[in-house]
Amino acid sequence: MFVLKDLRQITVIGLGLLGGSLSLAILRCFPGVRAVGYSHRARTRRKARELAVASEVADDIKAGVTGADIVILATPISTFGEIFAVIRDVLPSGCIVTDVGSTKVLPHLWAAKTLPSVVHYVGSHPIAGSEQRGVEFARDDLFDGATCILTGTKKTDKQAVQTLTGFWSKLGCSVKFMTPAEHDRVLANVSHLPHVAAAALTNASDARELKFAGKGFMDTSRIASGPASIWADVLLANANNTARGIDKIVAELLKLKRAIKDADRQRIQKLLEAARAKRAALIKQKIKSKEMIL
Amino acid sequence: MFVLKDLRQITVIGLGLLGGSLSLAILRCFPGVRAVGYSHRARTRRKARELAVASEVADDIKAGVTGADIVILATPISTFGEIFAVIRDVLPSGCIVTDVGSTKVLPHLWAAKTLPSVVHYVGSHPIAGSEQRGVEFARDDLFDGATCILTGTKKTDKQAVQTLTGFWSKLGCSVKFMTPAEHDRVLANVSHLPHVAAAALTNASDARELKFAGKGFMDTSRIASGPASIWADVLLANANNTARGIDKIVAELLKLKRAIKDADRQRIQKLLEAARAKRAALIKQKIKSKEMIL
Repeated sequence: MFVLKDLRQITVIGLGLLGGSLSLAILRCFPGVRAVGYSHRARTRRKARELAVASEVADDIKAGVTGADIVILATPISTFGEIFAVIRDVLPSGCIVTDVGSTKVLPHLWAAKTLPSVVHYVGSHPIAGSEQRGVEFARDDLFDGATCILTGTKKTDKQAVQTLTGFWSKLGCSVKFMTPAEHDRVLANVSHLPHVAAAALTNASDARELKFAGKGFMDTSRIASGPASIWADVLLANANNTARGIDKIVAELLKLKRAIKDADRQRIQKLLEAARAKRAALIKQKIKSKEMIL
Repeated sequence: MFVLKDLRQITVIGLGLLGGSLSLAILRCFPGVRAVGYSHRARTRRKARELAVASEVADDIKAGVTGADIVILATPISTFGEIFAVIRDVLPSGCIVTDVGSTKVLPHLWAAKTLPSVVHYVGSHPIAGSEQRGVEFARDDLFDGATCILTGTKKTDKQAVQTLTGFWSKLGCSVKFMTPAEHDRVLANVSHLPHVAAAALTNASDARELKFAGKGFMDTSRIASGPASIWADVLLANANNTARGIDKIVAELLKLKRAIKDADRQRIQKLLEAARAKRAALIKQKIKSKEMIL
């Protein structure tokens, strides 16, 4: 298999905010490499060409992946199985296939089922994004400073993992490795549950009263502005972990409610203080690891 | 009673983030007016003098309110009853007493019970703040662009409401009027419940996994870093509305959980889309009212 310095072509499938930003970042960080983009929407392909987010925007997905050293799926998770089936026969031998989806157990299953043994699948999850969507919001520094989790099993090719580690590091990411199951459990906790909590809080609010919302409500609910279809995909692809996490949040909410109903100041304060302390430790850690700057 | 242009002295009791910022804002917006500050902590009084947040920092609360045209409590809600009792005999006749507490039903009850009839109590709630605390974080523009809700009953003096409307407007606030009960219901919705949700989400998270938290988790949980004792106060002072609101959030969380468990993509998407649309309408409204700038 090729090593990073021999890289000639990377193909990004899907040119939304993530795919567009990825392609722009490749152009910036790998000047000699051809960044080929593909979108199934003609309008997106036109916009991507106008904005020059790729060296070349392919009209056909098979033509797009032909000759690619790395193929990266940046489409909704629910499309991965179908895309694997469409491209499997034209993928060059030794090609690395990855994706930027927010869950990893199902993509690994689909890849094992569909991709030929001459290509190497590794999951990637760069923890970056925004509540915006569309190629017009793409930025070449979206991954700068982000954590990127690579996922693999015992069967995953070590050289492919090493090449992708180099690839994401070059884009500015701090790279970690996990099993798909570990990844999905952790991500339910730190990403999928905040989304569910933000949506539930917003849905529970009276629309007429929201005009009095301050910065607190706006921040706590921000991610509820994310695209519903993408998130429905993510929650479905991580259903068990998400459902278990919802139970945990509900339990914490009811603990607080009971303490409030009992007018038990000490218990309320203890619960709020536990959250404050946990978040203080987290901020300290993020500053130490340079993810956050004070 | 005096009108705004005759204002000579305002006394702020409590010199934390809010009280300190209030005093600084008074110095900036009312150059001819004496801004007197008081804190029960010697250390805070010393810091407040060092930082010159007031024209004068009083060592004694009674001396501090003597001669005041307006007295503003910026201490935890649970201290209001006691403070009213301590200052009641030295408040000048015609003096306006207000506060910046986050709930209003109890302060109105305590004021009616304790303050003499020659002074006028009106509730104020400038919706501004930060998760920081302490006079060292005080800023003279904290109230600029904020909404300030004034609260009163049928018995509340109209001239006092008018004077305070002028006062907060001069500090840059957009002023609204509500009854105390209306205020507490609305604020449970837009402020106290986001806090509870942020704390529950944080408490439900596994501390070891939080190192993978991205911007989504950080924003959704931000306000959980607020001071636990102040928030315990607020939740206790608005117990029924908060408990009812927690039930609503729990109901929304369980709706999402059921849809995820049923693998019902359409229902998940509908719930997420409802939140997204509600938040889009809110952002549109905030841009229109110039509270938010794109």
